[in-house]
Amino acid sequence: METWTTIAPFIGLGGLLCSLLLYSYIKKAPAGTPEMVEIAEAIHEGAMTFLKREYTILAGFIVIVFALLFLFIGANTAYAFLAGSICSILAGYTGMNAATHANVRTAQAASEHGQGRALNMAFSGGAVMGLAVAGLGLFGVGSLAMAFGVWHDVSQASTINGFAMGASSIALFARVGGGIFTKAADVGADLVGKVEAGIPEDDPRNPASIADNVGDNVGDVAGMGADIFESYVGSVIATIAIAATASVSMLNILAPGISDPTSAKLASMSFPLIVITIGLVASLFGVLTVRVMQNADPGAALRYSTFVSAALMLAGSWWVAGQLGLSNQPVWALCAGCLAGIAIGLITEYYTGGKPVRDIAEASKTGSATNIISGLAVGMESVALPTIGIVIAIGLAFHFAGLYGIGIAAVGMLATVGITMSVDAYGPIADNAGGITEMAGLGEETRKITDGLDSLGNTTAAMGKGFAIGSAALTALALFSAYTSAIGAKTGAKIVIDVTEPIVVVGLFIGAMIPYLAASITMRSVGKAAFEMVEEVRRQFREIPGLMEGTAKPDTKRCVDISTTAALREMILPGLLAVLAPVVVGFLLGPVALGGMLVGATVSGVLLALMMANSGGAWDNAKKYIEEGNLGGKGSDPHKAAVVGDTVGDPFKDTSGPSLNILIKLMSVISLVLAPLFV
Amino acid sequence: METWTTIAPFIGLGGLLCSLLLYSYIKKAPAGTPEMVEIAEAIHEGAMTFLKREYTILAGFIVIVFALLFLFIGANTAYAFLAGSICSILAGYTGMNAATHANVRTAQAASEHGQGRALNMAFSGGAVMGLAVAGLGLFGVGSLAMAFGVWHDVSQASTINGFAMGASSIALFARVGGGIFTKAADVGADLVGKVEAGIPEDDPRNPASIADNVGDNVGDVAGMGADIFESYVGSVIATIAIAATASVSMLNILAPGISDPTSAKLASMSFPLIVITIGLVASLFGVLTVRVMQNADPGAALRYSTFVSAALMLAGSWWVAGQLGLSNQPVWALCAGCLAGIAIGLITEYYTGGKPVRDIAEASKTGSATNIISGLAVGMESVALPTIGIVIAIGLAFHFAGLYGIGIAAVGMLATVGITMSVDAYGPIADNAGGITEMAGLGEETRKITDGLDSLGNTTAAMGKGFAIGSAALTALALFSAYTSAIGAKTGAKIVIDVTEPIVVVGLFIGAMIPYLAASITMRSVGKAAFEMVEEVRRQFREIPGLMEGTAKPDTKRCVDISTTAALREMILPGLLAVLAPVVVGFLLGPVALGGMLVGATVSGVLLALMMANSGGAWDNAKKYIEEGNLGGKGSDPHKAAVVGDTVGDPFKDTSGPSLNILIKLMSVISLVLAPLFV
Repeated sequence: METWTTIAPFIGLGGLLCSLLLYSYIKKAPAGTPEMVEIAEAIHEGAMTFLKREYTILAGFIVIVFALLFLFIGANTAYAFLAGSICSILAGYTGMNAATHANVRTAQAASEHGQGRALNMAFSGGAVMGLAVAGLGLFGVGSLAMAFGVWHDVSQASTINGFAMGASSIALFARVGGGIFTKAADVGADLVGKVEAGIPEDDPRNPASIADNVGDNVGDVAGMGADIFESYVGSVIATIAIAATASVSMLNILAPGISDPTSAKLASMSFPLIVITIGLVASLFGVLTVRVMQNADPGAALRYSTFVSAALMLAGSWWVAGQLGLSNQPVWALCAGCLAGIAIGLITEYYTGGKPVRDIAEASKTGSATNIISGLAVGMESVALPTIGIVIAIGLAFHFAGLYGIGIAAVGMLATVGITMSVDAYGPIADNAGGITEMAGLGEETRKITDGLDSLGNTTAAMGKGFAIGSAALTALALFSAYTSAIGAKTGAKIVIDVTEPIVVVGLFIGAMIPYLAASITMRSVGKAAFEMVEEVRRQFREIPGLMEGTAKPDTKRCVDISTTAALREMILPGLLAVLAPVVVGFLLGPVALGGMLVGATVSGVLLALMMANSGGAWDNAKKYIEEGNLGGKGSDPHKAAVVGDTVGDPFKDTSGPSLNILIKLMSVISLVLAPLFV
Repeated sequence: METWTTIAPFIGLGGLLCSLLLYSYIKKAPAGTPEMVEIAEAIHEGAMTFLKREYTILAGFIVIVFALLFLFIGANTAYAFLAGSICSILAGYTGMNAATHANVRTAQAASEHGQGRALNMAFSGGAVMGLAVAGLGLFGVGSLAMAFGVWHDVSQASTINGFAMGASSIALFARVGGGIFTKAADVGADLVGKVEAGIPEDDPRNPASIADNVGDNVGDVAGMGADIFESYVGSVIATIAIAATASVSMLNILAPGISDPTSAKLASMSFPLIVITIGLVASLFGVLTVRVMQNADPGAALRYSTFVSAALMLAGSWWVAGQLGLSNQPVWALCAGCLAGIAIGLITEYYTGGKPVRDIAEASKTGSATNIISGLAVGMESVALPTIGIVIAIGLAFHFAGLYGIGIAAVGMLATVGITMSVDAYGPIADNAGGITEMAGLGEETRKITDGLDSLGNTTAAMGKGFAIGSAALTALALFSAYTSAIGAKTGAKIVIDVTEPIVVVGLFIGAMIPYLAASITMRSVGKAAFEMVEEVRRQFREIPGLMEGTAKPDTKRCVDISTTAALREMILPGLLAVLAPVVVGFLLGPVALGGMLVGATVSGVLLALMMANSGGAWDNAKKYIEEGNLGGKGSDPHKAAVVGDTVGDPFKDTSGPSLNILIKLMSVISLVLAPLFV
């Protein structure tokens, strides 16, 4: 075991090295015409400015929380929190840096070499992010655990919880802030540019089009990366925490071959870390698969790479479990989680790409009201099957390996994050490449290639969102289990959170209400920010002479600045809600009510997030379906109705829905870290 | 005690007698011109035909369930189920019969005597329903309990659970069927009549306008009545069930003065029944208050009557508790429930009539998409305060009187149903009166009076919806407590539904998912039914020569028939979902998972119902706010955007949202009745 846990952080560093190599490969590729370089530079700069301003604000938050943890919980937890925050920031920064270089080079590759090379470039940009997330997570958790002596002294296990808390805190602000930025810019650009001025999307005359492209990066790359990074480290740390407080009877199931309980515990604790080590190596194979298959069928290449990596990860984990002296039980739980993740992705693909999308398009024939009703109905229906998937995964995982099984199932879903995140981050890069193609006027042919890559990206993005919610659900449950184990270990008795006790029902109601409140706040924020953007774009069209004729340039920087300021202002309230709710409930109503709150928030948050993400995705694709020429095509009445649905869906799928994933994980991890204070 | 429980059914009969007297008073009033009589007759006939066809279908359902209960649970439970079903049907029938006579007489009173008399007539129509609901509930529960010897043999208490199950089953079908009917007709009439043909609402040329007015009756009168009837009897029966299985320590709190446990139990069991007896008498005073105040300020009259009745009910209950030998503790719990009900009503009034409505209207300036986003954000935010109200009521009620307190708090919210239901049913009658005024061409002056009464009815309807959800939440929790007590009593040990056990989490997830699925099904049903209606109305305008010119008459019967057929067809699926879900989960996953499911469904259902009802109400009033001349008034772009929101809100607030109230109660009561089979 010792060898494995020692190797882990180095494999993490290896992953980071691969990420760096890919990055330098991207940087070396030609960036195209001076005009393209200029546009890309503006996007890159806007994105980086946003990140810098965001991190400056977060620095204050980090310092305060660090001090509080240091004083009330312990020095190691505080350091771990700091490390988690920094790793999350690094992951976001690296991914976005790469994405904002890969976008223009994708456009250039499309124009010069065609689809294969363009796909390769966009995917390489995504892979920098994917490997950085996996590498930083593995390195961070692995080296901290080693430094704090977790593998020698089980009682130190709780110190690394701070790492997950750091990652979660940053993730929430990044997701909410990024989500508000991207949708304010998107709605602002569309409402004035496409609808009022009647110019195409990404037209260089539109003052908000740079901000729109920056938004894809800060929302879909940095925000998504922070989200997945958090699930990734959260699931591993929760599983370690559960194993560290496992009972002897549980250990007999997990490691029947190891008679010494402490050794059995350590083997079980190290297993999730080793699984993600294998998962990272498997992901590298997945990245290679894409490169090999890129010229055949891009869609298949992206899909198969995920399956190849998952299969390799499962096989490797099965072998390692034997080496560690563990039984097959946790491996079955790992399988359950992994399969549930894939199943949820496929269900999401159906609801955001299959018959339901055509139903919404049909409903657009009778106007925008029926389009909205139909989309909401699809979103609500779409929660059923993923819920059943999650429920089956929970049932099987627990059947095989108890609470530990739930944690390891979450790990199973996330272990191959290196490849799933790469596929996911590919989408916004392809989208950006399309935008640059349009703004730089690279012509019909190139635009067709980038459009193809973009539409493929939409499918992977929808699947990625379903996957993010599914993994958030399992991770939150694993963190919740770790929380109850921690309370139980502290009080010396198994904690019982009995819903026949009204205080638990009170907790459940409060918890279930919080996602609604958070979603409401973030939707309003998008509305406010978009309104400011609309006003600014209108002002520029009105006041800058020659803008519409193309003889004058828009002030794109000001639009980026408006989105940035609004996003950073509006991310504070939902952030505080998530951070303070568990603290207030924990101290006022006690650890049992807090347990109820966490479960309530998880169940309600997962359902609401699924509903919002899926109806948003379905509306988006219903509009695209009509734009492809169905039901009258672009400009027809059904198209106008579908645009309304798409606009409503924007904050649903890109701001409020995804924020809920992090909300539920963050509240759980804060409760886990603060558990000793509540008893 | 004996005296009280013997008196109760007679007071119930007394309430029914008052209802009958009011009915004959209405019938005696003049019904106006032959044209008015003809229109009213068409509405009356349409409503009655719907009820008859609905009850014919339900008869089959009742017979099957009766036979199953007879075979597997017991004869008395089966008889109680039958009685509950019949009482629910009678309540719906009586109320709707009165409402469809009062509507035309309200129009006539407005035209002949002015506002005071018109209000009196509309409110009298509502009061027939209110007193019938209260009288039938009190008579039904009181006489059954006496007949089954509940007051002599505590072990018989569970037999009356069947009454609540009967009431619930009918209520679900009535609510869903009525909700689909009314919205299909409404959307059909509006989309073709107002939008396409450009004729005003309730224009006699519109083939769907009779169906639209029928819909107000079958949805807002019969559906709402069945809903509240169910909460009313459900809360009383749940409290009796909890008291029947109360522990000795609990009895010491409730009845410290009674040393014999059985006597203490019987006193606690009889208390809820006596409270609603007093509540019925207090409601009669409330009805008198309205009659006294009707000429001063109609709004104040309706509001004060509720407060007067509540105060009388609380004072009387306090006195009776002393007479029975009970402590003040249950009275405090009663107060908590009563105040929470009023608070939720007021919060609902704010969200569907205050600043949020003007915000939505403002958002309409930038189009229908921002109107929708803003309305959804308002709806999501609006769940927070009512949830806190419910949570405080639960906390206080439990603090004062344990699980019994939760039941009695629900009773406190519902005891004055005689007056709250009257105020509620007044709304659709005033609405109908306006429709008849328009169709019969009674002139500007009369229309102004009925419009005033209608707009007052909109506020009371929104408050009524909030109240219905709040009472459903507490009733469902009370039924859930009764369920867990029943399982505990059967197994001889307190049942523990511990959310740290994955099977409970599985139950929670499944339960929380069901309201989403039910809402999705009902929204689609409205869409389908409205589509059929739109096609028919278009066909009539196309094929009937002279219809637009007013020289030919539309085929209104066919439109009523389309709504009826669609509603009855579409109510089956959600009905079966609600009936079968607890049965399947109870048998497959066991009573503990079922407990988790019930709590999950209650929490998720209450939040979703609040969100849907409040955003629907807010959209409706935002449209009305613009129609009053704000932001450009009728026909302006903001108005068009607001109409979209209103159309989306229709199934939200009148079909899907309200159906969820019953869904959660029905699943709880089925679980309670079938509890012995799951152990």
